[in-house]
Amino acid sequence: MAAQAGVVGLGLIGGSLGLDLQSRGWRVQGLVHRQATAERALARGLVSAVSTDPACLSGCDLVILALPIPLLLNPDPALLEALPRDAVITDVGSVKKPVLEAWNGRHPRFVASHPMAGTAAAGVEAGLAGLFQGRPWIATPDAQTDPDALAVVEAVARDLGCHWLTSGAAQHDQAVALISHLPVLVSAALLRAVGEERDPEIRQLAIALASSGFADTSRVGGGNPDLGVAMASSNREAVLKGLAAYRWSLEQLEEAVLRDNWPQLRQELERTQALRPEFLRTAPEVNP
Amino acid sequence: MAAQAGVVGLGLIGGSLGLDLQSRGWRVQGLVHRQATAERALARGLVSAVSTDPACLSGCDLVILALPIPLLLNPDPALLEALPRDAVITDVGSVKKPVLEAWNGRHPRFVASHPMAGTAAAGVEAGLAGLFQGRPWIATPDAQTDPDALAVVEAVARDLGCHWLTSGAAQHDQAVALISHLPVLVSAALLRAVGEERDPEIRQLAIALASSGFADTSRVGGGNPDLGVAMASSNREAVLKGLAAYRWSLEQLEEAVLRDNWPQLRQELERTQALRPEFLRTAPEVNP
Repeated sequence: MAAQAGVVGLGLIGGSLGLDLQSRGWRVQGLVHRQATAERALARGLVSAVSTDPACLSGCDLVILALPIPLLLNPDPALLEALPRDAVITDVGSVKKPVLEAWNGRHPRFVASHPMAGTAAAGVEAGLAGLFQGRPWIATPDAQTDPDALAVVEAVARDLGCHWLTSGAAQHDQAVALISHLPVLVSAALLRAVGEERDPEIRQLAIALASSGFADTSRVGGGNPDLGVAMASSNREAVLKGLAAYRWSLEQLEEAVLRDNWPQLRQELERTQALRPEFLRTAPEVNP
Repeated sequence: MAAQAGVVGLGLIGGSLGLDLQSRGWRVQGLVHRQATAERALARGLVSAVSTDPACLSGCDLVILALPIPLLLNPDPALLEALPRDAVITDVGSVKKPVLEAWNGRHPRFVASHPMAGTAAAGVEAGLAGLFQGRPWIATPDAQTDPDALAVVEAVARDLGCHWLTSGAAQHDQAVALISHLPVLVSAALLRAVGEERDPEIRQLAIALASSGFADTSRVGGGNPDLGVAMASSNREAVLKGLAAYRWSLEQLEEAVLRDNWPQLRQELERTQALRPEFLRTAPEVNP
């Protein structure tokens, strides 16, 4: 009999995992909250079977919690109860310290992990085959993590085409604050500043003239507010640290403009021009 | 005999204009600084004829100055001398107040204008047919602008498929500061903040985990430093005003995080989510 995986939550990440796991020979049992979602998930072939009853997970060898951060940090007692004690449990949350704190002691074979993949889409219609191919999947084991369970998650990640990494949870959360959570606030502040423009002629011109540079820089700031709040609230300290570094950096650029120090501004922009390819060595370049 | 247009500078904008004007029946005379550029421009078919001698412009009915801002604001005396007095002269600079100040009185038929089009490419290899199709082309006439000359530039812009607009130069420059120049500094500050990370493990993780969100938000901050300096120095007051509005906006978001005021942060992010489509109604959405 094929191994059975449970996927809890069938949004973009959960649905994509369902598709890819099935294509690798897993029987995939989905668990969702609403009956309508269950029906769409089955119609889309995201899972082999689906239920709204946590008891459906009883035969699973592996359960992946693809839940929004707030539900992951405060799991439903019925879900906790239903997780098989000998199954490997992992999550896909974009913060790892709070997840470890919430889950250590709750299940002996829990592995905190985070596949870094995404599109702008969300919900049961968003799941996409091959989403994880070539993307990083990072785990943040600590002293309580079962090494055999960790090896199971690694094997699944590699089988799905992911680049496997491990790190400390705090280091993961600070890195993700810098390259994922901070950009959301930086980008939202740009939209907010432009939105504050009260001169109707300037406002209309800004709308007429906004081009791909504005579109790119404002993209993540115009994203899902729930995701933004979940990131900031669950990774608060790291986000505040990132914001402080960001404010300092912006001040250096502003000071160069204020002082008409154009050689200084050129030097700063030469440095950022050189930095970008370094930080995007491994990223898919959607818009070069 | 077909009308003759001169294009001064054959980088992305000048080269693309050369291609499109020829396709609309113009004979296009290019003027460039270096012989090697002249040869490549001719080989690429950007122009009908090309020279490094400003005297080549003598037969032109229209001359488009597609020069970098610093050269546009401090034009070569030999170029000024060579511009036919009865030709219509226009520019493509992304700031308009300093251009009007530099050119009013220098040529009776000068029209300050700005086609809003671009790619990341630059130089004689960058010119692209159809670059202006569907894009805005804005002129900023003042009391000294010759209405017939303005009508000529409008006809050319519309013939190239542009959406034609006019506004005051100050309003143009403030709008462009908000949607084009400010994003460069906001985005550069993000790269600079991430680049400042000194913990080698966090730095390596940030590099490994940087994804499309970081790629998009950092794109314009990793662009051409000369362009960034030209924007900031020629549009200094508007850029500083934009930066002040931006700092205030970022502070509001940071304060919500600092005070654990998640309803406030959600409200802010709901607002930016609603603002983005409003400001990008007319922009080409490269990366939705």
